[in-house]
Amino acid sequence: MNTLFDWNHRSFTAPFTASGRAAIVPPPPWHYAGWLLNVAFECQADTASALVPHSLGKPVGRGCVHFADWQACTDGHELADPVLAQYRETIIVLEVQRPDGNHCAYCPAIWVDQDISLIRGLLQGWPKKTGSTWLTRSLPLDHPAAAPLRAGRVLGASLAVKDRRLIEARAELTGRPGQGLGFLALPAVGAVGWPDLRQPTQLPQPHLVRPDIQHRVGGEWHEATATLQVFDHPHEELALLGPLQALTASAGWVGITVFGARDA
Amino acid sequence: MNTLFDWNHRSFTAPFTASGRAAIVPPPPWHYAGWLLNVAFECQADTASALVPHSLGKPVGRGCVHFADWQACTDGHELADPVLAQYRETIIVLEVQRPDGNHCAYCPAIWVDQDISLIRGLLQGWPKKTGSTWLTRSLPLDHPAAAPLRAGRVLGASLAVKDRRLIEARAELTGRPGQGLGFLALPAVGAVGWPDLRQPTQLPQPHLVRPDIQHRVGGEWHEATATLQVFDHPHEELALLGPLQALTASAGWVGITVFGARDA
Amino acid sequence: MNTLFDWNHRSFTAPFTASGRAAIVPPPPWHYAGWLLNVAFECQADTASALVPHSLGKPVGRGCVHFADWQACTDGHELADPVLAQYRETIIVLEVQRPDGNHCAYCPAIWVDQDISLIRGLLQGWPKKTGSTWLTRSLPLDHPAAAPLRAGRVLGASLAVKDRRLIEARAELTGRPGQGLGFLALPAVGAVGWPDLRQPTQLPQPHLVRPDIQHRVGGEWHEATATLQVFDHPHEELALLGPLQALTASAGWVGITVFGARDA
Amino acid sequence: MNTLFDWNHRSFTAPFTASGRAAIVPPPPWHYAGWLLNVAFECQADTASALVPHSLGKPVGRGCVHFADWQACTDGHELADPVLAQYRETIIVLEVQRPDGNHCAYCPAIWVDQDISLIRGLLQGWPKKTGSTWLTRSLPLDHPAAAPLRAGRVLGASLAVKDRRLIEARAELTGRPGQGLGFLALPAVGAVGWPDLRQPTQLPQPHLVRPDIQHRVGGEWHEATATLQVFDHPHEELALLGPLQALTASAGWVGITVFGARDA
Repeated sequence: MNTLFDWNHRSFTAPFTASGRAAIVPPPPWHYAGWLLNVAFECQADTASALVPHSLGKPVGRGCVHFADWQACTDGHELADPVLAQYRETIIVLEVQRPDGNHCAYCPAIWVDQDISLIRGLLQGWPKKTGSTWLTRSLPLDHPAAAPLRAGRVLGASLAVKDRRLIEARAELTGRPGQGLGFLALPAVGAVGWPDLRQPTQLPQPHLVRPDIQHRVGGEWHEATATLQVFDHPHEELALLGPLQALTASAGWVGITVFGARDA
Repeated sequence: MNTLFDWNHRSFTAPFTASGRAAIVPPPPWHYAGWLLNVAFECQADTASALVPHSLGKPVGRGCVHFADWQACTDGHELADPVLAQYRETIIVLEVQRPDGNHCAYCPAIWVDQDISLIRGLLQGWPKKTGSTWLTRSLPLDHPAAAPLRAGRVLGASLAVKDRRLIEARAELTGRPGQGLGFLALPAVGAVGWPDLRQPTQLPQPHLVRPDIQHRVGGEWHEATATLQVFDHPHEELALLGPLQALTASAGWVGITVFGARDA
Repeated sequence: MNTLFDWNHRSFTAPFTASGRAAIVPPPPWHYAGWLLNVAFECQADTASALVPHSLGKPVGRGCVHFADWQACTDGHELADPVLAQYRETIIVLEVQRPDGNHCAYCPAIWVDQDISLIRGLLQGWPKKTGSTWLTRSLPLDHPAAAPLRAGRVLGASLAVKDRRLIEARAELTGRPGQGLGFLALPAVGAVGWPDLRQPTQLPQPHLVRPDIQHRVGGEWHEATATLQVFDHPHEELALLGPLQALTASAGWVGITVFGARDA
Repeated sequence: MNTLFDWNHRSFTAPFTASGRAAIVPPPPWHYAGWLLNVAFECQADTASALVPHSLGKPVGRGCVHFADWQACTDGHELADPVLAQYRETIIVLEVQRPDGNHCAYCPAIWVDQDISLIRGLLQGWPKKTGSTWLTRSLPLDHPAAAPLRAGRVLGASLAVKDRRLIEARAELTGRPGQGLGFLALPAVGAVGWPDLRQPTQLPQPHLVRPDIQHRVGGEWHEATATLQVFDHPHEELALLGPLQALTASAGWVGITVFGARDA
């Protein structure tokens, strides 16, 4: 039976309607600006490879947890109705050595608290599920509740998935400049694939993509020392990383724009 | 570059890992059991066609809103950890006459409050977004707060999307047997499609599927009279249905199992 | 300065307005009907006494966790707009022997997911905080996702507080009749008190009350065996109960109406 | 019967335990730092008086809506576990002329998304209920999603209560310095009172208090022009303010510390 139908819809994603107005995700460009806490870690390279496509390469035993408080928009109307623009997420990336010797950042797990971002992420190869992220913000005030960007101030972050705390981080600002870490330092590669329910016993064959990122601004990172704790979870697979050793951390603001993706 | 990679993952959906344990949606069969309030309505057929694939057929000017309080599982472990099993959703279906003269139920809009169900629905052609559904439950008690299944008792339901109330229903039980309505009375057809970010200016070409539903139980529906109200919303497209006239309503429990899908 | 002012407000609780319409809690009678899983437990009596007023009596080393899925109303308008009526909560009660030899149920901790219930509870001496409760429901269907009331079926329940899982229970129905447990078997006593910010270093002097409960219906309890697990938490004090040993459990529906309270 | 019992509890609020550790609100000082959008408005003075204690004075026909994204702490441990520290709220204050001729800010309605803040507010005479607030943030980046503090940039805000949108604001930065508005410009007065369920037909007799605020920092406000919209709501009483005319607006960061309260 013919499954390509002459339906003049204008939706980038479901639902597919004549105007496309109700589509959950509009087409790129997608603009993102956010406040991030990045904690680089050392992990077990051998067991971590169960989380990484073999054709992409081998984990080198390092990675990063990003806690992010984002604001995102397309034409800007979302900034005037911020329930559409804001979300928080926790991102795990692993550093992978590709067959050609180059290194990239591969994301085996990420949790977000909003639907638009969830679908938009899956399209880019960020394997998003729902999770609850909390992240201390640095406000430009000299006040006990403001956590300003100053040596000795503490930032905390946590992730809970299905009502279980999964990750906690505690960072103490050093007062020195820091570095972009994780996907801020290496090209990100994601795996995109969808099962087809008409063949429900076949698993999807994902393809690897690299987001086409432009207009990157920010990057004045503030260095921190950090501790990181990962808790057991019945469905998540972070235990394959072994115990995580926090290496260094950084906090700051970053803005990027995604225009699409290319084969990775 | 080769995008089909020899990665021995076992995930039905992202993330793609060696064990498949962290996949947001496990493969079918998927078991669903729930409490539903169904409100059949009359709507404008001509403008509604902007929400329906032309190749599927023409809206006949009737449809149904289903408010549902579900419990879903695969092998049953979800029932022992109900944060995995339970969710609420609001479903719109339109009755469509197909070119062969048969009628089906097509879903142009649906909102759910949980990630597993959101992705599982998209795979079946239910165009799920996040929304907040509330639905009175009938408890088997003779008490002012129990809303038992008895003539004259009132059930209410509401849907909010992005912090705006979109649909409200009020149903009064008649004490008579009712009918299965909407997708409970007609075969459901859904549109499945995903954009490819490597060609971000191309819209997806969805295909039409019909879920393979078996093991249906329940269906002792309780009749109700109902009123229905739809409110303006900046992104949703329900205004294309024109003013909705509630026809009849029913409430009750139903169980179904989905094994996959076929071309529709 | 005079703090009793001639303000003709009609609010039972804040905000205090001329009509009283916006008050978060209207005056009783308050009708409640719900589905409950009750798990009786043995605990350490000596350390538990740190959670109980000495004048009330001594914990006997038994208690109950109730997981509840409520529907509550006053004049019934809440049932037509169920966002006002429905909430879930987890209740801990300890059995206490009073100086006169009688036993009562005292609640040292309770967590709910809705504001109306939170304030209404504090007024009755239920020390409510926010928490996320999940509880399997038994639907009257013979289906894998329905968990009907039949021997061998499993019900699960969980509580998370501030994004940390605190309590988990797993119950297996025996097919035999069960008992009302906890506050369903013993008179409940609560402590009510509010600090006064004009004297911020003074702690409140709570008084003990017993809710005036009438119109109790239901109580056809279904017996279950159960296991119970309590996890560490940085702010909660359940560790003072020692390891909890589940004794017996029951599930079912109950309806009650609260008309006020009296000194306990 | 004696309701003052010799119970050596150490809780500032319920639950009342020997250690006081589980109390939902610890005693002051309470430190708050946040990002605020303040929209001053003109309203109907005569009908607004139904929301204000007569002994406090008469509304003058002006007020302010504050949308706030707070971080709050006591000894600072909350900043390392931000699920305890962060919340958003929407605050209405009315300008009232007191019998002595002085003006103050009285809060007839406020909605917050977290339990600690809800109870802490009620103790100060802020009549908090649960509501969902969204508020665009200005990030220090030159990026389309960052809404930096620059002339022409748009900030949006919204409040939903019980799944209905109640207030929306849209502000456009002018690039000029702005003013503290509402409770940032006038002393705030609140009404504190609790019903006693032992006398359930008596309404509480609230007393008026003024928070003891110290350590105020920030206040470099950024001026904006704004529009404001209030929607009908079945329980809220904002319609008594008549149509709101936005006068001026400002955005910025502020920090305050509350040490207690005194009679107002």
